[in-house]
Amino acid sequence: MATIPLPPNPEADARVAAVFADIRTTRNSDFINNFWRYLAFDPQLLEETWHDVKNVMARETLIDAKTKEMIYAAVSIANACDYCTHSHLAAARAKGMTPAEHAELLRIVATAARTNHLLNAIRPPIDPEFLADQPRP
Amino acid sequence: MATIPLPPNPEADARVAAVFADIRTTRNSDFINNFWRYLAFDPQLLEETWHDVKNVMARETLIDAKTKEMIYAAVSIANACDYCTHSHLAAARAKGMTPAEHAELLRIVATAARTNHLLNAIRPPIDPEFLADQPRP
Amino acid sequence: MATIPLPPNPEADARVAAVFADIRTTRNSDFINNFWRYLAFDPQLLEETWHDVKNVMARETLIDAKTKEMIYAAVSIANACDYCTHSHLAAARAKGMTPAEHAELLRIVATAARTNHLLNAIRPPIDPEFLADQPRP
Amino acid sequence: MATIPLPPNPEADARVAAVFADIRTTRNSDFINNFWRYLAFDPQLLEETWHDVKNVMARETLIDAKTKEMIYAAVSIANACDYCTHSHLAAARAKGMTPAEHAELLRIVATAARTNHLLNAIRPPIDPEFLADQPRP
Amino acid sequence: MATIPLPPNPEADARVAAVFADIRTTRNSDFINNFWRYLAFDPQLLEETWHDVKNVMARETLIDAKTKEMIYAAVSIANACDYCTHSHLAAARAKGMTPAEHAELLRIVATAARTNHLLNAIRPPIDPEFLADQPRP
Amino acid sequence: MATIPLPPNPEADARVAAVFADIRTTRNSDFINNFWRYLAFDPQLLEETWHDVKNVMARETLIDAKTKEMIYAAVSIANACDYCTHSHLAAARAKGMTPAEHAELLRIVATAARTNHLLNAIRPPIDPEFLADQPRP
Repeated sequence: MATIPLPPNPEADARVAAVFADIRTTRNSDFINNFWRYLAFDPQLLEETWHDVKNVMARETLIDAKTKEMIYAAVSIANACDYCTHSHLAAARAKGMTPAEHAELLRIVATAARTNHLLNAIRPPIDPEFLADQPRP
Repeated sequence: MATIPLPPNPEADARVAAVFADIRTTRNSDFINNFWRYLAFDPQLLEETWHDVKNVMARETLIDAKTKEMIYAAVSIANACDYCTHSHLAAARAKGMTPAEHAELLRIVATAARTNHLLNAIRPPIDPEFLADQPRP
Repeated sequence: MATIPLPPNPEADARVAAVFADIRTTRNSDFINNFWRYLAFDPQLLEETWHDVKNVMARETLIDAKTKEMIYAAVSIANACDYCTHSHLAAARAKGMTPAEHAELLRIVATAARTNHLLNAIRPPIDPEFLADQPRP
Repeated sequence: MATIPLPPNPEADARVAAVFADIRTTRNSDFINNFWRYLAFDPQLLEETWHDVKNVMARETLIDAKTKEMIYAAVSIANACDYCTHSHLAAARAKGMTPAEHAELLRIVATAARTNHLLNAIRPPIDPEFLADQPRP
Repeated sequence: MATIPLPPNPEADARVAAVFADIRTTRNSDFINNFWRYLAFDPQLLEETWHDVKNVMARETLIDAKTKEMIYAAVSIANACDYCTHSHLAAARAKGMTPAEHAELLRIVATAARTNHLLNAIRPPIDPEFLADQPRP
Repeated sequence: MATIPLPPNPEADARVAAVFADIRTTRNSDFINNFWRYLAFDPQLLEETWHDVKNVMARETLIDAKTKEMIYAAVSIANACDYCTHSHLAAARAKGMTPAEHAELLRIVATAARTNHLLNAIRPPIDPEFLADQPRP
């Protein structure tokens, strides 16, 4: 149950049609997932969001595409985003994440959550050795 | 300002001493950071936590050590853990994360947060194509 | 799937009946949404919660009713509350929020989430100019 | 204690200098707050972030500037971002938020948090009346 | 660094004075902690908040006072509230929480965080056996 | 809709069979809930997670079993974990939590959320009286 109605014919808007065309070209697939189809209710918001996601996720950068999707999924899990967790784990699988790597991702996320809560409970001083402008021992 | 007092002489406890020795051996460093020094107020909690962190983070696994620290930092940022964000970004740097990779990590985390909030606001149905037991188009 | 059973005949309890009557009068509508119907499992909790919500949201105050619902929805999105996101976006629409204002609300929430994560990652010192008892330049 | 070192002379980079100049012009003030000064460690990330924030917050849009800062602050509070809470409450004050409006903002945020947690605990079904494509009673 | 200035002489306001007197009586102590001293910037918000906290935490109810503070601290840790974590762990200690109980509280919170993240990552269907109106096997 | 497929015959794996047998023995019930059935996709992750949960929750410790489940549920609510909220409230009920105690738990969680947000908004200095190594007045 979405909080906005699904636009019935989004590509009648030229700006939406242009974004959808760019999604199809960039991903080399006809599939447009629901995020973009609902976001089309506001062409400007659709354009801005796709511009940012394409810029970060769909171009070759320093971090490989599979790892980027795994980091994206980790943040989505921590932020309790149901749709994002599904979509970015699916994207990581599509880019080659194996079941064993999936399990290891979950293990890292779960251990981080555990110590995040311990440290938000204990709140020790941050070691000077961690500071960015210090040499590490 | 921590919520528990720093144990003044933690290694007087044999279980704490054993964990600290294992931390030093595993990391090949004499440095024991504040998390473990405060956690020593309860030797069982220290043992359990170190056992888990060592198991996930300090052994060779499928994901390389630098990437593991970057995923750990991403979760810590999303969970608003000040200490963890410092310690795992420092660990990622110590394992080779460059400033450019650091910037790219932040870019992924920030874009994920943006779409996490958009999707938690819109809540569209999850595309059947994302389901784990479905072939992707 | 709720975690408590829906009370079958909540208005048989006099305290519940009084709260439901006040909700109907305050909102000038016969509709009682599920939040209050489930919360009726405990009349005291129902009374306290309605008292607070009515006090903040249903009286004329400095901030107009539509904007109050938009702020409420923004917090609900950030807290990943599915029901609240639906109910307060619906309330904002009922109080006049247009689709263009809805899109702008989402844009603010999404940009805030993005910079919230960047700043929880970078953690710079807070500028003295921001302090409440300082003149702004 | 930031997780990245403060760039010592950021405006030596032409892209940083251009962004800082645009911040000064847009805000009609010489003041550059720490967020941008630290973000300058990566000119691309600085450009992208400023582009987005300027686009949403610094242009005339449907929602007035003071209210936009109040919504931004509400999200920042919910996301536990210390720096953002300071900077956007300061910005709202600079744009005219009175102490009484500040108190009312806190009241809305606090009541939202209370019912967000109640509803994430009870998880009742979402009323069909809330759906975006339904007429409200 | 607070986001509002500390009211210099809050008890000059009769409503603030009445709340502070009630806090002192209820707690049988002259100590007024910073939360209430800052909240005094808005007497209505102070009254409402104290009324709620007193109602839930300072009266004899079904759950004993020490356990109530421990639950309160657990929520505060999960919500990354620095001040609240300090104040409610201190209150739990003042009501008899031993270091061993403190460690056990942290262990529960940390394990909950770990499985919360695993389940927000896996998102399995909720077992019908968990439903509130079903008999448990 | 889970993000991993349900393993069709998990107990064909000896490690999974051993964990499931231990769950049945520990809980004195044939029922294996979906968390463990899905987690069986990776026997090591299943073993580690069950080891931790059993260690904290299924053994006699200082805090009684019902209270432990209530604290676990409180954290799960704050972390917006749908499955965990259902499963741990069900477990608390199975261990004797009454509807009145359930209501009181919700009241504590809701009031904590309210003041967590107020304090993350106000961010007053932490009173020295709260420090762990200080005597309380």
